[in-house]
Amino acid sequence: MGPLPSYVSGAWHVPPDEGAPLADAVTGELVARVSTSGIDMGAALEHGRRTGGPALRELTFHQRAALLKNLGLHLREHRDELYALSARTGATLADSKIDVDGGIGVLLAYASKGKRELPNDTVLVDGDVEPLGKGGTFAARHVCTPLQGVAVQINAFNFPVWGPLEKLAPAFLAGMPSLVKPAPQTAYLTARLVELIVESGILPEGTLQLVCGDPGDLLDHLTEQDVLAFTGSATTGRTLRAHPVVTGRSVRFNAEADSLNCSILGPDARPGTAEFDLFVKQLVTEMTVKAGQKCTAIRRALVPSDLMDDVARAAGERLARVKIGNPSDPDVRMGALATLEQREEVRRQLKKLLDAGRIVYGDPERVEVAGADAERGAFLSPILLRADDADRAEPHEVEAFGPVSTLLPYDGGAERAVALAARGLGSLVGSVVTADPGFARRVVLGAAPWHGRLLVLNEEDAKESTGHGSPMPGLVHGGPGRAGGGEEMGGMRGVMHHMQRTAVQAGPSMLSAITGRWTPGAPRTETGAHPFRKHLEELRIGDTVVAGPRTVTLADVEHFAEFTGDTFYAHMDEEAAKANPFFGGRVAHGYLVVSFAAGLFVSPDPGPVLANYGLENLRFLTPVKPGDALTVTLTAKQISPRENAAYGEVRWDTDVTNQDGASVARYDVLTLVAKREAS
Amino acid sequence: MGPLPSYVSGAWHVPPDEGAPLADAVTGELVARVSTSGIDMGAALEHGRRTGGPALRELTFHQRAALLKNLGLHLREHRDELYALSARTGATLADSKIDVDGGIGVLLAYASKGKRELPNDTVLVDGDVEPLGKGGTFAARHVCTPLQGVAVQINAFNFPVWGPLEKLAPAFLAGMPSLVKPAPQTAYLTARLVELIVESGILPEGTLQLVCGDPGDLLDHLTEQDVLAFTGSATTGRTLRAHPVVTGRSVRFNAEADSLNCSILGPDARPGTAEFDLFVKQLVTEMTVKAGQKCTAIRRALVPSDLMDDVARAAGERLARVKIGNPSDPDVRMGALATLEQREEVRRQLKKLLDAGRIVYGDPERVEVAGADAERGAFLSPILLRADDADRAEPHEVEAFGPVSTLLPYDGGAERAVALAARGLGSLVGSVVTADPGFARRVVLGAAPWHGRLLVLNEEDAKESTGHGSPMPGLVHGGPGRAGGGEEMGGMRGVMHHMQRTAVQAGPSMLSAITGRWTPGAPRTETGAHPFRKHLEELRIGDTVVAGPRTVTLADVEHFAEFTGDTFYAHMDEEAAKANPFFGGRVAHGYLVVSFAAGLFVSPDPGPVLANYGLENLRFLTPVKPGDALTVTLTAKQISPRENAAYGEVRWDTDVTNQDGASVARYDVLTLVAKREAS
Repeated sequence: MGPLPSYVSGAWHVPPDEGAPLADAVTGELVARVSTSGIDMGAALEHGRRTGGPALRELTFHQRAALLKNLGLHLREHRDELYALSARTGATLADSKIDVDGGIGVLLAYASKGKRELPNDTVLVDGDVEPLGKGGTFAARHVCTPLQGVAVQINAFNFPVWGPLEKLAPAFLAGMPSLVKPAPQTAYLTARLVELIVESGILPEGTLQLVCGDPGDLLDHLTEQDVLAFTGSATTGRTLRAHPVVTGRSVRFNAEADSLNCSILGPDARPGTAEFDLFVKQLVTEMTVKAGQKCTAIRRALVPSDLMDDVARAAGERLARVKIGNPSDPDVRMGALATLEQREEVRRQLKKLLDAGRIVYGDPERVEVAGADAERGAFLSPILLRADDADRAEPHEVEAFGPVSTLLPYDGGAERAVALAARGLGSLVGSVVTADPGFARRVVLGAAPWHGRLLVLNEEDAKESTGHGSPMPGLVHGGPGRAGGGEEMGGMRGVMHHMQRTAVQAGPSMLSAITGRWTPGAPRTETGAHPFRKHLEELRIGDTVVAGPRTVTLADVEHFAEFTGDTFYAHMDEEAAKANPFFGGRVAHGYLVVSFAAGLFVSPDPGPVLANYGLENLRFLTPVKPGDALTVTLTAKQISPRENAAYGEVRWDTDVTNQDGASVARYDVLTLVAKREAS
Repeated sequence: MGPLPSYVSGAWHVPPDEGAPLADAVTGELVARVSTSGIDMGAALEHGRRTGGPALRELTFHQRAALLKNLGLHLREHRDELYALSARTGATLADSKIDVDGGIGVLLAYASKGKRELPNDTVLVDGDVEPLGKGGTFAARHVCTPLQGVAVQINAFNFPVWGPLEKLAPAFLAGMPSLVKPAPQTAYLTARLVELIVESGILPEGTLQLVCGDPGDLLDHLTEQDVLAFTGSATTGRTLRAHPVVTGRSVRFNAEADSLNCSILGPDARPGTAEFDLFVKQLVTEMTVKAGQKCTAIRRALVPSDLMDDVARAAGERLARVKIGNPSDPDVRMGALATLEQREEVRRQLKKLLDAGRIVYGDPERVEVAGADAERGAFLSPILLRADDADRAEPHEVEAFGPVSTLLPYDGGAERAVALAARGLGSLVGSVVTADPGFARRVVLGAAPWHGRLLVLNEEDAKESTGHGSPMPGLVHGGPGRAGGGEEMGGMRGVMHHMQRTAVQAGPSMLSAITGRWTPGAPRTETGAHPFRKHLEELRIGDTVVAGPRTVTLADVEHFAEFTGDTFYAHMDEEAAKANPFFGGRVAHGYLVVSFAAGLFVSPDPGPVLANYGLENLRFLTPVKPGDALTVTLTAKQISPRENAAYGEVRWDTDVTNQDGASVARYDVLTLVAKREAS
């Protein structure tokens, strides 16, 4: 068996040497070999920069999102094959689904979010226009453009499918090519994943590369435009962050490290409550899923002192029912650790933890295993510890990266629980199990500065909860300090990590030309034709219709009140309206103003404008008095054709002014406008 | 003269030793001495964490904003004193205004933005609710909480007032105390600034500390919750980033380093055009303001090859008119460099630049100086270089941090200009001077990945432009790579750099309790009283009124069309409406739906609800057909009392449903509601 090939510079590279052997976690048999000898890392990065990057940047966000969706659907067809390989890493079918289906889920979530939350464009505008001059001739707007390097992604051994995909999706959507370096232990599964992707031809060449094995001098070739993303141990994270090229060239670095995550049982959650059971069940789940090899697993279970015995007993009973063994047995609930070395490492860390606590469930040296050899496979019993002095350092500092958790007592309510949680010096996730909103609020807001994610679990959300251990594509993943100080996913936040945000200062017409969005102050184009008669392709930003004036009479106001039922005193009663601090007398309804404005700007006959599907940022700025004459100015602000539809969205800047030229209402009108070819 | 005192741990610390002398930049006389001996850096940080942080976190964002405003107004009263000290750093009055008034401007801008863009609350919610379960019982929201450490701010010598204030403002608004370490050269000005602030008593104790001089072991005491912000040379930035505590504890690090910024003259800007003159004028301004000691100054002027002679000539003529000398002379346009050492350093870098170019204006060894001694003061002539081979490395790599710029030729349009701009490997700012929107768009979008800020200058914005060299509080300041890879200011973005973003997952009622915002799916409280009859203090999130149903008749639709003038065919013509892809027959106007909804939920008599000042995020979700019966459910979603007004804002979740319970329109109604004590 030769070593796993890597996919670099547009071809599969087969290492010339024998490579290092990788063992099946369950049987100890040889699964694969890894080596990166002969790979020109600098050339691979340059291939990403010169081939993958430009290809991606030609696509709009929606086109990239569509490719992610296709990729997700394609991989879904190959799940069974990936599950089978995943079993060799020691994972049960349920574990494999978290990895494989979870990874596919991230692709599909980013595809869907990209289509909904990003424009069908290559430029992303961030935030509103910032006016910089009182005369309106100088303003700024932030644009985000993809970094022109490669996102180098160093993944951990525990999620060989989800890890690469959750990093690929936001990078790809942003417009950055990826170079994936899986951890060697389970690289054979990532290698097959990448093979499936490359074979599919869905992603443009150069947007995904794979380096199986030792990274060699990869980091020495990073530049100012590259991104380095890392998931793994806090120790390795520190080394990468301090790499002279990373510090010397300000390489954007994003680390997500395993941490001493805690779960807090609320004082209200006495035995017999739903929350007590939820806490114990979640603790056991987090200890045994992936055999506890999750950087989000619960390492510290904070329990009110007087409930320590109850929790220890209930958790022990539940752990005793967990069947351990060969993942091919469908009754098995916990498989093997990834490697025998990993088991030794867990045992070493356990020894340190035993300085501060004692075992209340499990035996680090003995475990009953179904359908496999407990010594040839990397099997380990779940170990629940109890440390009655919660102020000891070890439980807050020592991580045994396996099915190991420690029960720690606390007294004194939310503040003490928060203080203990903070002893982890930064965690990916924490959870609090309580039905008490006050306790939940104090714990969440108190512990938030030390956490990337916090879960409140109770009867309200238990049925739908995705659990303590599961990062979600729409939520940030990463935590401060010990957890690496990074932030991944979080929906569009993760996309932004791959883009440079730039403030662009210019006059309004230049700003419009650069951003593709009409900017207040830029010229408005009033042609003979009403812009509502133009199809999407003919419409240009700045196209404008000015309509009116229409005088609002007192009779209009009274009639509108009577017709709609909106007889608010400010419209009906001069005396009362005068006493109002804002109106100084009777005023027209805001809803009347926008209704009259629509009556002015509408183009009644069938045409390209299909529907007004919403309004945004409506502000009533000046009261409209009976006798005021309204004029409306409607200007095409943003034109967004859809990829696979006969229409697109057009956003219109809308300014309703009175006879003095003062704005009485400003808002964006949102319409759907047909494409010409569709009509 | 003893050394400058530092303000640490709540007291002025006077160093026991003599300290190092600092010279007046103009006369060479002794101005001050600096030393940090005897300062317990760890205790100072701990004072910030234990005293300043908790005091700040007790305040709402609006209360913090009000203190920043007071501080800005207070410092404004002491401008003349600061200008006088500033002159001793070599700064002209115009230079001093950039530093002093600029710094005060940042305080006032953050005060104003904080009040407008942040809630009057201690918790900041980031982004929308992320639904996580189809049943609506599990969702998430991101909250931002202030980091519980100290923002350690290491500033550069060139802006001793603006530097500390532009870092303090966003940190303070976020809720983080600051520890300011000015560069020694001009520390006497920062020391006086801090003295003025401390004397004023405006900021809570512990929220601002000052360390004048060598930082000693300051960085060794940083923790996971601290922030390290640095402005200065790229070399020092690299050293700080690689500090073992910074990398070891994932200390959030934000660097803003001087860089090889470029200004690009467009091919359209021939001699005689306004843009040609603007380019030359700006180049000379950037060379001479602060004697070119600005990390944003133009170091590389990219000029179409055939215009090199014209630009060299025009810039030379303009430079010749710049009077250099003692800043106390009102005709002087350029003062001295900060120190004699700095002048020597500029001369050393100039030598390297001369390997690739030649001087077209100025003499590094000789300068005519008015009202001062050219050798005792740190005076240097502006030096304009010309490097005809733009591919040489030196002009893109060597920075002479003084009144020095290099002209570089380019041919081949925007792409070549962008490629040369990128040779700076990351810059704080670039500018392009052109009247051609196509050229501007290609340069800006092409160069954006290498820049934190880009200015397009031409006749349209010249009058109001704040110029190439001026960072603005609302715009990001910082650039990738060589520029440090950081990001400061940028309005609320800079505030977020001092907060931890945490995803909170919970059921909707828990999410409401934690965030203080009503979350869809949380209970709605329908009491007997209409919530519009409640004052701000009595209102609770979740308070709800359900009103209706009201049937929309065909007559209503026709009447509304006739009354408003909105006779769009989808409302008027059954046949034509059927052909529309979304409606399938005649539908009621969206404006009619929201008008009827208002008629349903209104409470007509005078009461606490003073005005409906706007709507947000209105979406029409289901067409309303004649005969449909509308019900509206209005729920208090967010309650924001104002600090200094008799009312506050209340945002209402509004859901208009039809007889089948389907939402036909959803939006937020924005109202002003009176406080009880005011009525």
